[in-house]
Amino acid sequence: MIATISPVSVTEAHPFRQALVDAGLLFPSDVPGVYGRGAAMEAIVAGLDAAISGLGSDDGTSVIRFPPVMSRAMIERGGYLRSFPHLLGTVHCFEGDDAGQERILQQVERGEDWGGEQRLTDLVLAPAACYPIYPASAGTLPAAGRLLDVSAYCFRHEASPDPARMQAFRMREFVRLADPATVEAWRDQWQPRALQFLRDLGLDPRLAPANDPFFGRGGRLLAASQAADGLKLELLVPTSSDVKLTAVMSLNYHREHFGETFAIRTADGAIAHSACTAFGMERIALALVRAHGVEPGDWPAEVRARLRLAA
Amino acid sequence: MIATISPVSVTEAHPFRQALVDAGLLFPSDVPGVYGRGAAMEAIVAGLDAAISGLGSDDGTSVIRFPPVMSRAMIERGGYLRSFPHLLGTVHCFEGDDAGQERILQQVERGEDWGGEQRLTDLVLAPAACYPIYPASAGTLPAAGRLLDVSAYCFRHEASPDPARMQAFRMREFVRLADPATVEAWRDQWQPRALQFLRDLGLDPRLAPANDPFFGRGGRLLAASQAADGLKLELLVPTSSDVKLTAVMSLNYHREHFGETFAIRTADGAIAHSACTAFGMERIALALVRAHGVEPGDWPAEVRARLRLAA
Repeated sequence: MIATISPVSVTEAHPFRQALVDAGLLFPSDVPGVYGRGAAMEAIVAGLDAAISGLGSDDGTSVIRFPPVMSRAMIERGGYLRSFPHLLGTVHCFEGDDAGQERILQQVERGEDWGGEQRLTDLVLAPAACYPIYPASAGTLPAAGRLLDVSAYCFRHEASPDPARMQAFRMREFVRLADPATVEAWRDQWQPRALQFLRDLGLDPRLAPANDPFFGRGGRLLAASQAADGLKLELLVPTSSDVKLTAVMSLNYHREHFGETFAIRTADGAIAHSACTAFGMERIALALVRAHGVEPGDWPAEVRARLRLAA
Repeated sequence: MIATISPVSVTEAHPFRQALVDAGLLFPSDVPGVYGRGAAMEAIVAGLDAAISGLGSDDGTSVIRFPPVMSRAMIERGGYLRSFPHLLGTVHCFEGDDAGQERILQQVERGEDWGGEQRLTDLVLAPAACYPIYPASAGTLPAAGRLLDVSAYCFRHEASPDPARMQAFRMREFVRLADPATVEAWRDQWQPRALQFLRDLGLDPRLAPANDPFFGRGGRLLAASQAADGLKLELLVPTSSDVKLTAVMSLNYHREHFGETFAIRTADGAIAHSACTAFGMERIALALVRAHGVEPGDWPAEVRARLRLAA
C-alpha cells in the first residue's frame, strides 16, 4: 500500500483526516484538500450513488453525467462570477512556441510563477453538477416540466486541512424545472425525504436554513436575503467534528434566476423556476465513517445492505 | 430528454458524433471535445471498468482513484512541461478584492480576456491517471515491486470535432514498478492480454508501435527515439472512422524515467523501472458503438454479458 503522497505542505494536525489516511480511505497529496481515494472509499461512494438513484429517479428522469470541466461562457452568463469569483477554477493553457516553452522551463527551474505564459481557455472547472443543464434547457419545457439526475466532479478553490472541505469532490444532484408551484412542492417534499435518507444510513441530520458563501461586500447582503427567504436548506451531520457540523446535502430553490438567465419557459409561456437537491458524495461518506468507523466491514448490517457493500 | 447543450461553436459536420448525440449517448456543449454522458454511455463505461478489474487485478494490487486535479509541483518535477506543455491545463483562481471582481465583470461584459485577473494555483488538470503515484512511491519498493490500479478523469487541450478526441475523458491504468526484467516481462504479457480483452468485446484490434505527441522541435527527436526503442505500443480500432483507426489502449514502458526522477528504488537498491497499461474508457465505449451500434440493448449477448449490461 502507498500510505501517503508526499504530504509536504499538509502539516496541520487533523486527527480525523489522519484516521482516514491510516485506514487507506484517503491518500493525501502535497496540496490541501486534494486526495486519492482508496477502494473502500470508492465502494462507499458507489453504494451511495446507487441508493440515491433508487431515491430520486422516476421514469421521466433524464440522467446526465458531466466531466469536471465546463463552458466558461455558460458560467459567465449564469452569474457565477458575480457571486463566487473566489471559488472558481479557470483552465489555462500554453499556446506558444519553443521559445515560450523555454521561458516556462526556466521559470520552473527558478521557482518563479510561470502563469503569465498560460492563456485563459474557454473552459472552467465545474463548480456544481447542475450548471450545464440550464443553458441546455433554453426554450419551452414539456407540460410537466423536467426532472434531471446529474453529477460531476466539482472544484472549489478553498485549501483546508479538513477532509470534509475538499477542493475536488463529487456532487450528485436532482434538478426540477417547472412552474413555481410545482417546483416549490418538489422542494418541500424533499425535506422529509432527505432527512429519512440520511437516517436510514444511521445518521442523525439537522435541517437548517443556510446561505451560500457569496463574495465581497455585496455578498453579505445576498447571503442575508437568501437565508431570510428560505431559499437554501442544508442537512448537517458530524464529519470531522461532533460539534461543528458539516452540510452533506442541500435543497436549493433558485426561483426564476436560471429560467430568466437562460430563457427557459413553461408550457404556458411563463419563466420557469428551478430547484435542486444536492448530495456531497465524499461528505456523506465521511459522515458514515464518523458514525460507524473506518472499517466498512464493521458497519451495521442494514447500512451495509443499503449501500450494497459485500458481506 | 435534453437533446443538445447549446452546440454554438461545434459546427463541423461529423456523422458519428451526430449519431452518438441523436442516440442520447453524448450531449455536446458549446466547447468542442467536452460532452455530457447519457445513462447508456455510463452503463457501458461502468461495465468496462468492472471487466478491466477482473482482467488486471490480483491480491496485491493497490487501488486508487484520483480526482481530476493534481499537484502542479509533481507535474513540473515529472518532466511533463518538457514533453507536452501544449496539452496541459493549469488551474487558475481569483485572489483579489471587490475592485478586482468589478474588473472581471466589466471585462466579461465587454467580451475581453479576463485571464490576467487569475493567478496560477498549485494545481493542474490531471494529464494521465498514473502521474500521482510516482512521487508517492519514492523510497524502496517491496521485494516483488508494486502493482497499482488507478483511474482519473484526465484533460488534454486539443479541441476536435472528433468524439474520440475528447478534452476531458476517463483513463484507467495498471502500473508496474519493479526491476527492469520484471517490468519488461509484465509489459510483454500485456500484449496478448490486451488484444484478447478487446477481441472478447467483439473488436478487431491492431497492435502497433507508437509515439507520444511530443512538443516542438526537440519533440520530433523524442518521438522518433520512443518509437524506435519500442517503448510505446497502441491498440487501435475503428471509432469515428473505419479507415483512420483510434488508439483505445496503450502499453508504455518508461524505463528508469520515473524511478530516477522520484527516487524509487528496488529492494536491492537499484533505480526502479516502470510501465503502464492504459485504457481510454470513452474511446473503448465509442469503438463498441462503432462495432455494435448505438443501441447497447441490441449488442451481441456475449458482449452484453461481459459488460454486465442488463438484459
